[in-house]
Amino acid sequence: MRRELKIFSGSSHPELAKAICEYNEIPLGASEIIKFSNENIMVRLLENVRGSDVFVVQTSCPPVNEGIMEMLIMIDALRYASAERITAVIPYFPYARSDKKDKPRISITARLMADLLQTAGAHRVLTMDLHSPQIQGFFHVPIDQLIAAPLICDYFRNKDLSNAVLVAGDVGESKSIGRYANRLNLPIAIIDKRRDGDDEKARAVHLIGEVQGKDALIIDDEIASGGTLLEAAQFLKRYGVKSVSAAAVHPVLSGRAVERLHQIELDELVVTNTIPLGGKQSQYDKFKVLSVAPLLGDAIMRIHNGDSVSKLFR
Amino acid sequence: MRRELKIFSGSSHPELAKAICEYNEIPLGASEIIKFSNENIMVRLLENVRGSDVFVVQTSCPPVNEGIMEMLIMIDALRYASAERITAVIPYFPYARSDKKDKPRISITARLMADLLQTAGAHRVLTMDLHSPQIQGFFHVPIDQLIAAPLICDYFRNKDLSNAVLVAGDVGESKSIGRYANRLNLPIAIIDKRRDGDDEKARAVHLIGEVQGKDALIIDDEIASGGTLLEAAQFLKRYGVKSVSAAAVHPVLSGRAVERLHQIELDELVVTNTIPLGGKQSQYDKFKVLSVAPLLGDAIMRIHNGDSVSKLFR
Amino acid sequence: MRRELKIFSGSSHPELAKAICEYNEIPLGASEIIKFSNENIMVRLLENVRGSDVFVVQTSCPPVNEGIMEMLIMIDALRYASAERITAVIPYFPYARSDKKDKPRISITARLMADLLQTAGAHRVLTMDLHSPQIQGFFHVPIDQLIAAPLICDYFRNKDLSNAVLVAGDVGESKSIGRYANRLNLPIAIIDKRRDGDDEKARAVHLIGEVQGKDALIIDDEIASGGTLLEAAQFLKRYGVKSVSAAAVHPVLSGRAVERLHQIELDELVVTNTIPLGGKQSQYDKFKVLSVAPLLGDAIMRIHNGDSVSKLFR
Amino acid sequence: MRRELKIFSGSSHPELAKAICEYNEIPLGASEIIKFSNENIMVRLLENVRGSDVFVVQTSCPPVNEGIMEMLIMIDALRYASAERITAVIPYFPYARSDKKDKPRISITARLMADLLQTAGAHRVLTMDLHSPQIQGFFHVPIDQLIAAPLICDYFRNKDLSNAVLVAGDVGESKSIGRYANRLNLPIAIIDKRRDGDDEKARAVHLIGEVQGKDALIIDDEIASGGTLLEAAQFLKRYGVKSVSAAAVHPVLSGRAVERLHQIELDELVVTNTIPLGGKQSQYDKFKVLSVAPLLGDAIMRIHNGDSVSKLFR
Amino acid sequence: MRRELKIFSGSSHPELAKAICEYNEIPLGASEIIKFSNENIMVRLLENVRGSDVFVVQTSCPPVNEGIMEMLIMIDALRYASAERITAVIPYFPYARSDKKDKPRISITARLMADLLQTAGAHRVLTMDLHSPQIQGFFHVPIDQLIAAPLICDYFRNKDLSNAVLVAGDVGESKSIGRYANRLNLPIAIIDKRRDGDDEKARAVHLIGEVQGKDALIIDDEIASGGTLLEAAQFLKRYGVKSVSAAAVHPVLSGRAVERLHQIELDELVVTNTIPLGGKQSQYDKFKVLSVAPLLGDAIMRIHNGDSVSKLFR
Amino acid sequence: MRRELKIFSGSSHPELAKAICEYNEIPLGASEIIKFSNENIMVRLLENVRGSDVFVVQTSCPPVNEGIMEMLIMIDALRYASAERITAVIPYFPYARSDKKDKPRISITARLMADLLQTAGAHRVLTMDLHSPQIQGFFHVPIDQLIAAPLICDYFRNKDLSNAVLVAGDVGESKSIGRYANRLNLPIAIIDKRRDGDDEKARAVHLIGEVQGKDALIIDDEIASGGTLLEAAQFLKRYGVKSVSAAAVHPVLSGRAVERLHQIELDELVVTNTIPLGGKQSQYDKFKVLSVAPLLGDAIMRIHNGDSVSKLFR
Repeated sequence: MRRELKIFSGSSHPELAKAICEYNEIPLGASEIIKFSNENIMVRLLENVRGSDVFVVQTSCPPVNEGIMEMLIMIDALRYASAERITAVIPYFPYARSDKKDKPRISITARLMADLLQTAGAHRVLTMDLHSPQIQGFFHVPIDQLIAAPLICDYFRNKDLSNAVLVAGDVGESKSIGRYANRLNLPIAIIDKRRDGDDEKARAVHLIGEVQGKDALIIDDEIASGGTLLEAAQFLKRYGVKSVSAAAVHPVLSGRAVERLHQIELDELVVTNTIPLGGKQSQYDKFKVLSVAPLLGDAIMRIHNGDSVSKLFR
Repeated sequence: MRRELKIFSGSSHPELAKAICEYNEIPLGASEIIKFSNENIMVRLLENVRGSDVFVVQTSCPPVNEGIMEMLIMIDALRYASAERITAVIPYFPYARSDKKDKPRISITARLMADLLQTAGAHRVLTMDLHSPQIQGFFHVPIDQLIAAPLICDYFRNKDLSNAVLVAGDVGESKSIGRYANRLNLPIAIIDKRRDGDDEKARAVHLIGEVQGKDALIIDDEIASGGTLLEAAQFLKRYGVKSVSAAAVHPVLSGRAVERLHQIELDELVVTNTIPLGGKQSQYDKFKVLSVAPLLGDAIMRIHNGDSVSKLFR
Repeated sequence: MRRELKIFSGSSHPELAKAICEYNEIPLGASEIIKFSNENIMVRLLENVRGSDVFVVQTSCPPVNEGIMEMLIMIDALRYASAERITAVIPYFPYARSDKKDKPRISITARLMADLLQTAGAHRVLTMDLHSPQIQGFFHVPIDQLIAAPLICDYFRNKDLSNAVLVAGDVGESKSIGRYANRLNLPIAIIDKRRDGDDEKARAVHLIGEVQGKDALIIDDEIASGGTLLEAAQFLKRYGVKSVSAAAVHPVLSGRAVERLHQIELDELVVTNTIPLGGKQSQYDKFKVLSVAPLLGDAIMRIHNGDSVSKLFR
Repeated sequence: MRRELKIFSGSSHPELAKAICEYNEIPLGASEIIKFSNENIMVRLLENVRGSDVFVVQTSCPPVNEGIMEMLIMIDALRYASAERITAVIPYFPYARSDKKDKPRISITARLMADLLQTAGAHRVLTMDLHSPQIQGFFHVPIDQLIAAPLICDYFRNKDLSNAVLVAGDVGESKSIGRYANRLNLPIAIIDKRRDGDDEKARAVHLIGEVQGKDALIIDDEIASGGTLLEAAQFLKRYGVKSVSAAAVHPVLSGRAVERLHQIELDELVVTNTIPLGGKQSQYDKFKVLSVAPLLGDAIMRIHNGDSVSKLFR
Repeated sequence: MRRELKIFSGSSHPELAKAICEYNEIPLGASEIIKFSNENIMVRLLENVRGSDVFVVQTSCPPVNEGIMEMLIMIDALRYASAERITAVIPYFPYARSDKKDKPRISITARLMADLLQTAGAHRVLTMDLHSPQIQGFFHVPIDQLIAAPLICDYFRNKDLSNAVLVAGDVGESKSIGRYANRLNLPIAIIDKRRDGDDEKARAVHLIGEVQGKDALIIDDEIASGGTLLEAAQFLKRYGVKSVSAAAVHPVLSGRAVERLHQIELDELVVTNTIPLGGKQSQYDKFKVLSVAPLLGDAIMRIHNGDSVSKLFR
Repeated sequence: MRRELKIFSGSSHPELAKAICEYNEIPLGASEIIKFSNENIMVRLLENVRGSDVFVVQTSCPPVNEGIMEMLIMIDALRYASAERITAVIPYFPYARSDKKDKPRISITARLMADLLQTAGAHRVLTMDLHSPQIQGFFHVPIDQLIAAPLICDYFRNKDLSNAVLVAGDVGESKSIGRYANRLNLPIAIIDKRRDGDDEKARAVHLIGEVQGKDALIIDDEIASGGTLLEAAQFLKRYGVKSVSAAAVHPVLSGRAVERLHQIELDELVVTNTIPLGGKQSQYDKFKVLSVAPLLGDAIMRIHNGDSVSKLFR
């Protein structure tokens, strides 16, 4: 019974899969992913995986739903090809914001994702910075969640933070900045948003905490349409901040996000490569991209060898 | 405990859902399907479904994988909204041709589809003309398969078939035309295709049976890229057929299919509306579309009332 | 097939079960719960439940783990006695704070609770104010979560709130007060706590927002050992608040909580009866207890009748 | 943790189990199978199997249902005796023709077989020439299907095939001969059968293709009652074939099959030993039996070692 | 949604199924059970069962394993034919004596039976006098166990029992006669058997209790090969009993049982019709057969109507 | 992939866990079990367990239900911490007497225990002297049951048994003493108890067998409240026994058991340490405690190494 480590890549983020393989000094698993004219996807593993310890790297990025189906099909193929253990490596977890029933008769789709992955045959999951830590509880297989906070904080520690304040764009999101506030030892401020009705969009109405003359650092787990960041930056300027920087683990950057970024005078926008920036990187020159490949590579080796993963969190 | 009949529609084929509702004289269930800028889908049921007997109509058509995810999310929403029974009505079943492992290390994706539907919460399935009847065995919930053969044969019986011969485009596909041969009482001919290597495309090499001077009627369960039909028609003409008509239950018509149709001199191309033709209908004037809405409508009423569905097969 | 509504009570909170039955004008289901000298529990249903729609009322209160086992045994007895549907009514959900893996190698015990309930045979769950809304996603059966915010806000709306400010005792808990801030249209303030090491207790270090001369209203989903409330009240007084009131949905009041309450000069402590106060009520005269029996009673009737429960949320 | 290879035999085909063990040069696992006077079967494993990689050889042959129960009981005994992995080696899969719902309200019993095997504790299945390839999709455990076509074709390649034509006894069965036609590079002919009503037996009505003066080779996956072969041979003779040979992977030979064989003037009847011929071999002298023991033996070693099984298909 | 009561019969005991139907004044469900020449069984339901409350009557009698497979196939057919609820009515449960692991590496086959029934689709089970009451715990679906003791005791109460003593044939079996001793208010005696080695047969060595000059009544849950009864009767005669009668719920009567009965001078052998006596009844004139049809008929009606079944136990 | 043996202890019987570790010469796994003031339990594993073969030692003793929950939480923590295999070592199985439905509408709680253990993540169970051997069938994972009879018989074989008689305190319990009678080659006697109504307590009414002038040895699987033993001893003395000794595998000793022991003139009370005696040992000087640590230690090593456990039964 061999137990060889193999890493396969879906088509969502091959650069990251390759970077992980290079970091770990193993070749990428050979597979072909064909999309027929009827849009059906066929995944074909081009090497034997019987008894292997397989990791499938697939992040959530456009085309999002296509990528999910592709990952499920690849896992299914691996399972029936007798892989001994299949770990879905999903740097940015799909539908992570659909983690609660905040409206009547909707799906908690992050939980459905967990169910689908397990049905297809995933034995474990490796992911990063889930929108809420409770999502780990959606799984009935072991899940390792890495966090980018040490990486991001290391980056900022090399900067002058003497005048900085951390800002959460919403009371509801303030919890996640606690992690950064503790590590960087910075004061925090929170933008208080209110909504008039259940279906209304929340609007920034107050700023809680001190920001005048400060260097504001807005940190969130993801930057999606850029709307929240734009609103926050504008709001902060009304309160007299000196400068605004931002950091987000997952650069979703959907819709008109890059356009909106150009409307904000950011000093810098720090993100990781859990999602490929693709062409967007050349459209906006304030990006600072930190690579999570070493972190994921270490975690994969530790999982493979049965070593502690929590040791990666310093 | 009420047990009200409700029919909801995904976004793949609203016309068919509406036609079924009209046929059954009940309103379409109110829901909204939102696709956010990050491509995440949110399904929200706008009416109470507790204790209801719900049918969700979603066929497989582009965007195929998007449509599957949408259906899974809608079923999940229905389940947690306490629908008593959820039946997935899938006129054209996705990935039905991925029903066997004809290459090493691939997924039997039709079985995965069955698994995903059940994981999401479907209690039953209603479908039409599966590529192979064994797909019914992929399910652990009851599944009703309707067949369009009576509908299509009724149509052809009103035509002059005295000089007709049924043609299967491949030995492998010849089984399904048995159903039509028996009903229409017609002779059959089969195109013998061979492939040189495992990965080679099969080529027509012989014609088994008599077609000279005959009106050939090529029937298959689906017409996908049109390549098989084009090759068959050209091959038949070399063997001296007088005319060629074609019928297919599912008008997939992927890629350059319509373009290919224009290269074939068909008298007629009979299809059903299990898949929306959309703009293709105006691009090709030989289509004859038969509606399956009454058939699906009757089946839904029978399932709802606990009446026999097999009675629909005459 | 009858589908009679029956409500049974575990031994944790019989007063609440009775109040719900009285509100709904149905008798409490007859059962006996025996604890033998070897501490084994035997639940015996004293009336036929075949085909019934059964609700089991059991909240989480000392002895907590005993109560969980008792509920599981009662559900198991109901299931094998052929109850048609079993709904666990758990006003205060056990282990709700164990909803994430915030330390290495611990259990997400709230998820385990969900698993155990489903294994024992619960078909649905009805609960109130979960510590985090994501806990709903831990279940593979439908779960209805009621919230006490309308009840609590109705109570405070009859008071003079013109000088009031809502206070969250921790950045991490600030999300839940958003619900109250929106309903009562009040400003908010947040106590910023920091911890030095991972295993250190967090200490209040800053107050974000304005509280001087204000009437502070500290709202949380539960009041456990009273330590957080005591620290918050003392901290607020240092910042010059005029008065402090508090409200919490779930009066856990564990350990030396009542003792601590006497150290705080609260104007009032508003709680609900999701947990029995028992003798504590006479030990502290600032309690104002709001009954959730009508809310739970309405929800049970709506679930039984297949009516919308979300309508209860105004 | 040892992972020793062990092979056990049910009572259906001990010769094959022994031949596989001899080929692999390992001893047969020690067990006793007792059938009490009340017809209850007891399987007792006479050696330790903890942590072993166990293969159970049991084919489908009379008494068919007894053999299934025996296999399930043996697998159950292995599972609770802590075998690490149990592979059911089923050369001829039971109920394989019950793979679809071709009549109302019947069981897809091949799927039920798959379910029962998994319930008893089989972790994988190794089988040969399934009646339809879709049966692989009935399993939620990995299944390896070997095919006898290379073996049978090797045998015929040593014969003079210059005048040969492959014949399928039914349009519905023509698909499987494609496999042989491609490998042997022979023309094909198909017997067109029709049935008058749903419950009528199909009768041969036409012959599609050329057979006059040819050496007909009728190939099917199994020969059951011999009726189809008898009818086909007689039909072919009416069309002037020079000679008739036949091959079938699985020699079921049920009921009056041997008797019928004597009515056909076959040159040869090539079968494999997936099913024991037993006394029938001496009753009919045209049998040519090819052994699948080396094929199964190789597959078992490859599965045990985690090597590719598809490499066996040349 | 109809919920019609339907009763189907397997081929093991049609007389009992008919007697139950007559008692309940409903027609027997129409089905056909075909056994093909290859021994494959096909069950075809000849009437619609959608939404019905179906009971399948199948007892365990020769051919035992055939009967189990037939029942599983019938249940599978019912499930996919959309029966709303399927209750397996199994008067004599198969493999009930295989209820523990009294030798290393054997199957607890009664538990496997429970698993198989649930896998096939049984939603409940109705049975009689299980060999051990713990077998109820092998099921994850509700199971009702009826007991024949009231029926048998009623019969004996009409006899003169003033001189009677109840005898258990083995210490291990003495528990079940407690039920009869209490109801008939009779003294008991027990035959003490010992075995020399684990694999040795136990031999009667002592008689515990008084039997001299008494009318011995040997009661057991089943009479299988008759060996135990024969040995007990001979042993009792050595101890001077005046007469010997016997009663057993389940007349298994396997192997040479009837032959052995002729060697015992029994006054009477009381059994029930949970198993068909068939031709044995005419071979031995001491049989007194009590019908369980009314008991089963009542239980079925009560289960169907949701009434208490324990009320049947007086 | 390491497969290290690790043994963790719950808080029920740390002395036994330590004794097993010492016997096996491995350190006890590091963990902390915290009970918060709200009675919630947190289990935290203080060492890496990825890929390990983990055994959790937890017996059933007061607080019984607390101990069950603690074990479930510990297993859950181990599972999500990626232990390769988790074996629950439960010397005295909780709720073992709730193994049948001897009253209407009660739970077979021993089966529920099995379900809960499997839901939490136990892959196997190791236990001792189950109240009934059928409980093994409640599990769908392998379970090893050790028996203390060899240990206890070895002890008594060193005594003078020439005048001894084994006594079962109840007909229903007589089965288990067969095991001892065979090993010690002693005559047996049984106390016949009867109950007037279903809910009445059974009273000793007869003694079956000879005891006058004998040394009575009362053996049972457990001694709970001591009531049965007290009644038996008093009853035996009325029948003229010379002396009374007793042995029980599991010293439950609940409620007023020790008090009752003082009312019986026992020569000796032999028990094992499957349950901690704690302070009771000093309250009663007739205890003779036999340690099961070597037996459990051997079994754990054999399970870990894949050796036969049945070899431990001599």
